[in-house]
Amino acid sequence: MMRFHPLAFPTALLCGSLAFAQAKPRARDLGVPFDGTPGANNAITDVRGVEVGHTTLISGSGKLKVGEGPVRTGVTAIHPRGKNSNDSVFGAWFTLNGNGEMTGTTWLEDSGFLNGPIMITNTHSVGVVRDAVIAWKVKRGEPDTEGYWWSLPVVAETWDGYLNDINGFHVKPEHVFHALDSAHGGPVEEGNVGGGTGMICNEFKGGIGTASRVLDSKAGGYTVGVLVQCNYGRRDQLRIAGVPVGKEIPEHPAYGEDVGSIIIVVATDAPLIPTQLKRLARKASLGLGRDGSYSGDGSGDIFVSFSTANPRAADPKSLRDLKMLPNDGLDPLFLATVQATEEAVINAMVAAETMTGIDDHTAIALPHDRLRAVLKKYNRLAK
Amino acid sequence: MMRFHPLAFPTALLCGSLAFAQAKPRARDLGVPFDGTPGANNAITDVRGVEVGHTTLISGSGKLKVGEGPVRTGVTAIHPRGKNSNDSVFGAWFTLNGNGEMTGTTWLEDSGFLNGPIMITNTHSVGVVRDAVIAWKVKRGEPDTEGYWWSLPVVAETWDGYLNDINGFHVKPEHVFHALDSAHGGPVEEGNVGGGTGMICNEFKGGIGTASRVLDSKAGGYTVGVLVQCNYGRRDQLRIAGVPVGKEIPEHPAYGEDVGSIIIVVATDAPLIPTQLKRLARKASLGLGRDGSYSGDGSGDIFVSFSTANPRAADPKSLRDLKMLPNDGLDPLFLATVQATEEAVINAMVAAETMTGIDDHTAIALPHDRLRAVLKKYNRLAK
Amino acid sequence: MMRFHPLAFPTALLCGSLAFAQAKPRARDLGVPFDGTPGANNAITDVRGVEVGHTTLISGSGKLKVGEGPVRTGVTAIHPRGKNSNDSVFGAWFTLNGNGEMTGTTWLEDSGFLNGPIMITNTHSVGVVRDAVIAWKVKRGEPDTEGYWWSLPVVAETWDGYLNDINGFHVKPEHVFHALDSAHGGPVEEGNVGGGTGMICNEFKGGIGTASRVLDSKAGGYTVGVLVQCNYGRRDQLRIAGVPVGKEIPEHPAYGEDVGSIIIVVATDAPLIPTQLKRLARKASLGLGRDGSYSGDGSGDIFVSFSTANPRAADPKSLRDLKMLPNDGLDPLFLATVQATEEAVINAMVAAETMTGIDDHTAIALPHDRLRAVLKKYNRLAK
Amino acid sequence: MMRFHPLAFPTALLCGSLAFAQAKPRARDLGVPFDGTPGANNAITDVRGVEVGHTTLISGSGKLKVGEGPVRTGVTAIHPRGKNSNDSVFGAWFTLNGNGEMTGTTWLEDSGFLNGPIMITNTHSVGVVRDAVIAWKVKRGEPDTEGYWWSLPVVAETWDGYLNDINGFHVKPEHVFHALDSAHGGPVEEGNVGGGTGMICNEFKGGIGTASRVLDSKAGGYTVGVLVQCNYGRRDQLRIAGVPVGKEIPEHPAYGEDVGSIIIVVATDAPLIPTQLKRLARKASLGLGRDGSYSGDGSGDIFVSFSTANPRAADPKSLRDLKMLPNDGLDPLFLATVQATEEAVINAMVAAETMTGIDDHTAIALPHDRLRAVLKKYNRLAK
Repeated sequence: MMRFHPLAFPTALLCGSLAFAQAKPRARDLGVPFDGTPGANNAITDVRGVEVGHTTLISGSGKLKVGEGPVRTGVTAIHPRGKNSNDSVFGAWFTLNGNGEMTGTTWLEDSGFLNGPIMITNTHSVGVVRDAVIAWKVKRGEPDTEGYWWSLPVVAETWDGYLNDINGFHVKPEHVFHALDSAHGGPVEEGNVGGGTGMICNEFKGGIGTASRVLDSKAGGYTVGVLVQCNYGRRDQLRIAGVPVGKEIPEHPAYGEDVGSIIIVVATDAPLIPTQLKRLARKASLGLGRDGSYSGDGSGDIFVSFSTANPRAADPKSLRDLKMLPNDGLDPLFLATVQATEEAVINAMVAAETMTGIDDHTAIALPHDRLRAVLKKYNRLAK
Repeated sequence: MMRFHPLAFPTALLCGSLAFAQAKPRARDLGVPFDGTPGANNAITDVRGVEVGHTTLISGSGKLKVGEGPVRTGVTAIHPRGKNSNDSVFGAWFTLNGNGEMTGTTWLEDSGFLNGPIMITNTHSVGVVRDAVIAWKVKRGEPDTEGYWWSLPVVAETWDGYLNDINGFHVKPEHVFHALDSAHGGPVEEGNVGGGTGMICNEFKGGIGTASRVLDSKAGGYTVGVLVQCNYGRRDQLRIAGVPVGKEIPEHPAYGEDVGSIIIVVATDAPLIPTQLKRLARKASLGLGRDGSYSGDGSGDIFVSFSTANPRAADPKSLRDLKMLPNDGLDPLFLATVQATEEAVINAMVAAETMTGIDDHTAIALPHDRLRAVLKKYNRLAK
Repeated sequence: MMRFHPLAFPTALLCGSLAFAQAKPRARDLGVPFDGTPGANNAITDVRGVEVGHTTLISGSGKLKVGEGPVRTGVTAIHPRGKNSNDSVFGAWFTLNGNGEMTGTTWLEDSGFLNGPIMITNTHSVGVVRDAVIAWKVKRGEPDTEGYWWSLPVVAETWDGYLNDINGFHVKPEHVFHALDSAHGGPVEEGNVGGGTGMICNEFKGGIGTASRVLDSKAGGYTVGVLVQCNYGRRDQLRIAGVPVGKEIPEHPAYGEDVGSIIIVVATDAPLIPTQLKRLARKASLGLGRDGSYSGDGSGDIFVSFSTANPRAADPKSLRDLKMLPNDGLDPLFLATVQATEEAVINAMVAAETMTGIDDHTAIALPHDRLRAVLKKYNRLAK
Repeated sequence: MMRFHPLAFPTALLCGSLAFAQAKPRARDLGVPFDGTPGANNAITDVRGVEVGHTTLISGSGKLKVGEGPVRTGVTAIHPRGKNSNDSVFGAWFTLNGNGEMTGTTWLEDSGFLNGPIMITNTHSVGVVRDAVIAWKVKRGEPDTEGYWWSLPVVAETWDGYLNDINGFHVKPEHVFHALDSAHGGPVEEGNVGGGTGMICNEFKGGIGTASRVLDSKAGGYTVGVLVQCNYGRRDQLRIAGVPVGKEIPEHPAYGEDVGSIIIVVATDAPLIPTQLKRLARKASLGLGRDGSYSGDGSGDIFVSFSTANPRAADPKSLRDLKMLPNDGLDPLFLATVQATEEAVINAMVAAETMTGIDDHTAIALPHDRLRAVLKKYNRLAK
């Protein structure tokens, strides 16, 4: 019945290809001025060990037949220490507006640890993804570092029902396994991929976006990477590098209100304990603020953060040795989080391509030439 | 392969039968002294409109074969306004110890509303139950009172892997539908039923328990009902009506540590707003305290509360009229919550029967005669 | 010993004067483009009933002698329903970064009510202000609407020790009484007044700022007013209307790091319950984001919100009748909060004048002409 | 005007005397059975480094004249690392019911550190105590370990207005300095001392109580100490060692409702990070539950916890080395917290003596002989 779209699932399989990733311009390639120094890939994977995998499901077109399609959805996996590690990381989370789901947060909050991958999908597939993460781990036959069996997976979502047959429940366990197994470091696919496939951002086509910042050596030389599944926002509020781009390109708004959501994942290799990571997650709000969000009632703006420092911190039984950055060293990390979030959102829109889904609903891509023209009008075009 | 146990699933189908429910003694029938005045059924369903349904899955015996059994699990549904209502209720939640899952809490926290049923199952079946709740609602073709599609279901869990083939993922969507559809008012089945089927409490056999309190008329005459899925606790800490029962009956402990969890659902018809309901949920901790819990690291002690007052409070578009009990009227409700929680836990153990599960693991029932003897020794036998 | 500066305390006494308030240009008078429709005074007092009073303490100059001065400090009082009301309001609070104090928040969080005024002062005077609020209320001889005696006042602070002899503890009870008693509606003094006297914002002179928004009638016609005590921020991050003003005017930075804080008070007459007010408070973060804040480790970014609707909601003993805006009507209020916060911060800097304090430390005012020139450079000058 | 009562303030000065402390029987001396192993002094000071100081103010009798007395109040200081240390400790806090004040919690929550002493006093003296802590530190001329000046002190309170002229504001800075300066290790005075002087607990005379537990060596041999300022509870709910003592001794209730509060301080030398300390604080609820509390609306049940491990963790500038107990080692600490809280409350009542205060209001002491008789009746007398 449901089949993988020839241009979709294989895309995921090819996703590690540098050629692919570099072929598409990103926001700063278009001359958007951003502050701070990005890492090698300007991606969450610049934090060593982080791997990202997508399964993209695109099939069918025309009128919605629930259970048959059209399908415009998927699932994204982020492994904090790579897919072959069973070591937990310190983590934390924050809700800017709660109209969404992120499972696993109660234990994340209380334990301070993230045991396993972070998954992002559509709203109605959170359950299947959650249980499939457990099944995947059971299949691999190893408990997590605390001796539990990754029984409380972290799975987040945004709603893609404007383009996707969301009530058809098209994400299946095998798609989850594929995203988990195909995850890799290096360049990260953006736009209409993985959980972001059918998403809409500031009423342009949205999806997955990423960015990173590297601190200078006197601040510790740490890296902060951000990945977003971007589905929030009202067109007229959109600012890019402070410029009122949304007002300047008012055509073809998808909805006319803020109905979406954004999931933000913040990764760092700085040695932060959970109290500090919670603050880091919270700062992502300010990056969203720079982009013009007002985080509407219908938005599930939920952020999760983790640190890849302190390996084996979750090992049971014996006293653990930790490293901790002093609180007075956090400022460069806070600023990096704000900057990388600001950029990751724009990267998602720049990468996403116009998509038509159920009942011929269409979300248009942010037009690159128009963006450059607007930046120029406001004397903000970087190149 | 997997079939419903003849004594199990049919039990659920018969669960409304008064004869059945009354045949089993409850804690106060055994002479345990409790304070306060219970409602007609001493159950959460004493709060008018609340309906409870169970699907109980028991099959196989002997050595564990993952995917085949033995199966000792299930799912329980609590409809705040009955299965045929699509009206939300004000709600709130609280975590005493976070080693567990309750989905849907981010929006519950931020919206102040509970849109749909509360589900309780085993740890590895949260996902299937969650998506099935959405599917059930979609099938019935009506949005919730806020115009959303119950897309963020509240599903909680405790871990039954000591008795149940938990990695076999035996709970299926049809079991969820059955629990939802078979829910009813009146007496509530307790012990080895629904989500509580394979649970262990204070190292006795545990499961589902319930109790209620009715306030006197000068306190408003409101009802508070509590339902627990009881899977927490270490034997030597167990107190019943203040008596150190656990120390007096030390035989056959299941584990020797506090590895379990407890989900507590608090219902009331008092007109409380979410801020007040959050406090109500938090007070359940004190009922657990009376029973001797210390809420160990491995425990997912997560509580949810709701009020059936203020119908249509979640209706969109127009200004809503609400009733609110003043804060200074909360004390009798707080005390009722503590008392009903204290009793519901004991009811779960009194109702549960000895069960043997995977690899011949056995959890023994709290022996009724021994309980009476201990109460008598400490001059606390009520009758 | 300490005496009121002739240009300071009398300023507070004159603070109601329209002539005074109108003589100073505000941000939009300088051509800064802001979205949305402000109320009559573009001030928190546009929310009917809200009154603001300041006591401004300025005396001495030159080298710091602890206990003698120089003094550059004060206290600001905000009465949600005016100084003569003893009626509580629904309220809530949020912390974006916690390096600060706001007393009274534990009961605000749990009760959902704000009983009495909100006070803002310097970090080392929170205590004296707190107890003085109780003394002021005791003197007036009336309990609050819950029958308590306003025993848990809400007092917030930011740190003015760069300009002020903060360890001299110059704020005295009589200054608190004056701020409380002199509070008034209408135009609100901004800049170097009240608690904001010695504050620094984005390394320009900061202090008190305010703004408001009026919703259109189909959104309910409600008003949102914001008042900030602005002491946060690093120069190079400052954006005004999206324009990188801080980078364009780099001269005379006060510190070179983000050491300050911001207290944000959000008032509305929309009938919101505490759950909703908490979300409103949280959205102020996004206004700060628009202005470029990254909320550094040293910042106490603490926000409080209240609704003047639902009079007598806190009356004890009998069931209360409330009005509540549906959640799906919150978006215009969220956007108004973001916009009014964005503008209030800029208003604080525009109003504040260059100040020299202890040890000849100086904070320069944001130069109005330079601001206009920068806005013009980026094609954002509104007039 | 106000003078120190000859039997009061000197008591504080003498408070280190072993003779004094040992002269009074404590709960277990009366035969109350408690579980677990206490430390040498069965006091919070069993956690090495912790020092406690009291200033007790008792003067006047008869009819209340506001500002003149009678005075029945005071202030208690707890130094986590002793009065001569300026080193911060990891800390956390929790609110069971929020009708109270604890200043400094916003930064405690966000920084994970407690910088300076914990102070406990009456409700209307929180401000003077707070500012006096800053003044005391300024006088000593050293910043805290983060380079700040202890500017956000932690000061908690309960309400003593039934016995004390609370609106007379009798606590002065010199009383705060005395409590800070006279703090010591070893036995801790209990009952009508320090901040607990005028407090009422379960409608018996209450005040300060303390207890401790030492873990066995395979659990790490750590110590947990608890100190309470006990002012909560309704007589008929009081349980001691599970026995319904309150119902058995119904005479002379102070109020007939739960109007009070309890502040609980939990100290440990186990190496816990703030996430873990937050859980520890929360578990104190279960100790209260064992004693029968239902935490009424009027109660400010606020708990703070800290760990004396990890010295210099708050030092700025360079990466810190920490030790952390694994989460799976927390259970014995959780249980110790529950047990020590349960006992500290009873110790407060056992130590407190009948007191008559304003307008001849009297709170009677828990009668020791009656307590023993009731324990015996329920077969729970330990000796």
